[in-house]
Amino acid sequence: MEFSRSADSLQPSYIREILRAASQPEMISMAGGLPASSLLPVDLIRASCVLLTDKTELFQYGASRGYAPLIETLTKQHPEQNDKWLICNGSQQGLDLISRAFLNHGDGVVAEIPAYLGALQSFQLAGAEIYPLYQGSEKSHNQSQPDLIQLENHFKTGRVKLFYAVPDFHNPTGRVWSEETRTGVCTLCRHYGITLIEDAPYRELRFSGDQHSSLITLYPEGCIQLKSFSKTGFPGIRMGAMNGPAEFITIAERIKQATDLHTGLPQQAMINTLLNHAEYPNHLARLQDSYRERYQQLTSELIRQMEKQVQIEVVEGGMFIWLKLTTGSGSEVAERALTHKLAVVPGAAFYPKGQIVEDNAIRLNFSNTDPINITEAVSRLRRSF
Amino acid sequence: MEFSRSADSLQPSYIREILRAASQPEMISMAGGLPASSLLPVDLIRASCVLLTDKTELFQYGASRGYAPLIETLTKQHPEQNDKWLICNGSQQGLDLISRAFLNHGDGVVAEIPAYLGALQSFQLAGAEIYPLYQGSEKSHNQSQPDLIQLENHFKTGRVKLFYAVPDFHNPTGRVWSEETRTGVCTLCRHYGITLIEDAPYRELRFSGDQHSSLITLYPEGCIQLKSFSKTGFPGIRMGAMNGPAEFITIAERIKQATDLHTGLPQQAMINTLLNHAEYPNHLARLQDSYRERYQQLTSELIRQMEKQVQIEVVEGGMFIWLKLTTGSGSEVAERALTHKLAVVPGAAFYPKGQIVEDNAIRLNFSNTDPINITEAVSRLRRSF
Repeated sequence: MEFSRSADSLQPSYIREILRAASQPEMISMAGGLPASSLLPVDLIRASCVLLTDKTELFQYGASRGYAPLIETLTKQHPEQNDKWLICNGSQQGLDLISRAFLNHGDGVVAEIPAYLGALQSFQLAGAEIYPLYQGSEKSHNQSQPDLIQLENHFKTGRVKLFYAVPDFHNPTGRVWSEETRTGVCTLCRHYGITLIEDAPYRELRFSGDQHSSLITLYPEGCIQLKSFSKTGFPGIRMGAMNGPAEFITIAERIKQATDLHTGLPQQAMINTLLNHAEYPNHLARLQDSYRERYQQLTSELIRQMEKQVQIEVVEGGMFIWLKLTTGSGSEVAERALTHKLAVVPGAAFYPKGQIVEDNAIRLNFSNTDPINITEAVSRLRRSF
Repeated sequence: MEFSRSADSLQPSYIREILRAASQPEMISMAGGLPASSLLPVDLIRASCVLLTDKTELFQYGASRGYAPLIETLTKQHPEQNDKWLICNGSQQGLDLISRAFLNHGDGVVAEIPAYLGALQSFQLAGAEIYPLYQGSEKSHNQSQPDLIQLENHFKTGRVKLFYAVPDFHNPTGRVWSEETRTGVCTLCRHYGITLIEDAPYRELRFSGDQHSSLITLYPEGCIQLKSFSKTGFPGIRMGAMNGPAEFITIAERIKQATDLHTGLPQQAMINTLLNHAEYPNHLARLQDSYRERYQQLTSELIRQMEKQVQIEVVEGGMFIWLKLTTGSGSEVAERALTHKLAVVPGAAFYPKGQIVEDNAIRLNFSNTDPINITEAVSRLRRSF
C-alpha cells in the first residue's frame, strides 16, 4: 500500500511510547497529561446516566453544530464571548478542524516552542510549516513571556496564517501570559490579519494568583478559543468546544460534517448535565485545591531532595512543572528513570523535528500522581541523575 | 478570514437542507437515512448504562486503536476477517481517515455514481479527483451491476489509488453486487494494486435473498472494510470500525491520534454490550422483519397509486428505494413534494459536481417512515407529479 506524503511523515509520538511504558506494574508515572482519576466527577452525572436510555432521541442522528441544550449552556455561561459554538470530539479535533479550515500546503503557523506536539501534528498533517517562537529565549527582553519582536518578524514574512497559543499554563512549560502580553499579541494579530488560536484546556485549573483576560474577549473578530472538557470533566468521552467568529464556525461545521457528521449525543448530554450541576463549581474548587496540594508537595520534595540538580519555575495552575536541569541531559535522565520505575517526559520531546532542541529539561505531571507516591517519585528521579 | 481552498470548495449539502425542512411539523420525511427510532435497541444497553459511572476507567483517556474488549469482540465475531481493527466515530470518520492515509492532492478515486455524497466529500476534502463508474449505464452489459470494463479503463490511467464501493444495498440505489462482480472487482484491484474500500453499513439489513461474500474476505491484503453501528445500533453515539491490513491500521491509528486522540470509551462500551447481548441476534431479525414490511407496504402503495409514473427496482435489504420516474424531473417533484409536506431527496442530489446528472429519479427511505403514514406519503408524492 502506498500512503499519502502527509501520512508517511507522521511520526509515532515519543510521548506515546513513554505512556505505554508508564502502564507497566510498579511504575510511577509523571509522564501523561491526565487528570486525577480519583477526582473525575462521575458522581455528578450518575443520575443522568441511569436515565440515559429513556432519552431515545440521544441515540438517533443529531446536528453537526452540536446538541442544542449544551450550546445554550455554553452561551449562557460565557456571555462575554462570541455566541457561536461548535461541539467537537475533544479540543484535539478542534485543532484538526481549524487546520483544515485555514491551511493550504506550505502555509505558516507560529507556535511557542517547546510545544504540545499533538497540536503541531494537526498543523503538519495539513502541510503547514511551523514558525517557532522560542520560549525563554535568551534574546527575549523578558524570559518568562513570548518575545513580541520575534513574533512580529514571523508575521512580517507574509506567510503566516495562524498563531497557536496556550496563554494559560502552557503545556509543557506551565507559563502564563501577562495582561500586557495578551494585549500586545492581539494588537499584532489584528494588524497583520492573523487568526489567533487560544487553546485553553488548563485555564480553569488556576490554583493561585489572578485570572487574566481571555484572548477571545480581546480579539473577538479574529480569535478562536478551544475549550476542553477533558481536564475539568472526563477525557474518556472526548468532548470539547470551539468558540469563534460566525464565518469560521459555519465553515468548521461543514468540515465537521464531512469528518464524522457530529459529536455523539449521549456524551454531549453528560457534559451538559455536568456544567449545569449545582455541585460543579465545588468540583472545580476541589480540583484546584487538590492540584495545588500535589504541586506544593512535589516542589517541596524537589527542593528537599534535589535542590542542586534542578531549577523549578513556579506555576499558578495547570498540570505540569517544567524542570530545568542544572547539568546533564533530560533525555538521558528520562531513560534512566524508566529503569527506576519512574516515567517522565524529556523536554526534548516537545520540540518539533527540524527545530533547535534544548535537552536540559524534563516535564513533570503532578495532577495524576497519587500524593502518597510523590516522595518516592522524587527519590527515583534523584537516582536517575 | 481567509479559508483553505479545500474548505472553500466544500458545498453545504443539499440533503442537509432537505433534512432541515423535513423536521417541520406535519412533514412526512422519506428523505434521511435514519434507522427506525422505535427500533433503536436501547433496552439492550439499559442495564449497562445504569452502571456506567461505576467504571471510572471509561472516563479516563484510552487507547487510540480502540477499547480493547470491543476489539476483542469484533475479532471473535468475524474470524473470517483480518484481525486488525480500528474503532472510529462512525464510518464517516473511517472514510476521512482513509482519505488522509492514502490521498495526495490530485489522486484518483473511483466511485459508483450516483453516490453517497458524504463519502465523496471526504475524498474531495483531501484534494482527490473522482472517477465516475456510472451505475446502470446503458453501455454496460448488465445494467444492474457495475461495468468492469469501465472500471478497468479508470485503473489503466495509472492515476487511481482507491475504489470506493458499497456492494450491499448501495446508497442511493439499493443495488447489490453479484458474486461474479465481487470476484471480478477484486481480481482487477489486485492486478492494478488498487486499495478497495468496502463500505458496509447496510450489509446486515438484508431481509430477503442470500448474503454474498464480503469483499474483505476475497481481497484481504488490499481491502479496507468500514463497519457502521449506526444502522444496526445507534447513530447518535457515532460508532464505527475499520478492518484492514496491519500496515494500514498502523498508519490510520497515527492519523486518528492526531485527529482526536481516540473514540470515546463509554460509547465503545455501549456497543460492546450490544454486540455481546444474547438478544442482539433477535434485535437484528426484528429490524430485518420490520424493514421488509415497510418496504413491501411502500412498494404496494407505489404500484397501487402510481404505477404509470414510476419504475420500482426490487431491493433485498437496506433502507432505500431508487425510484425512476417515467416522466418529469426528480428535482421538481422533490420541490413540489415539500409544499405537500413530504420530504424526499431527488436523485440529482447524489451526483458530484461536474459529473453527468440524470434528473429522472428520487430516493425514498423506508426504514424511518412509520407504517401508518406510508399510504398518505405515497398520496402526497402522487400529488407532487
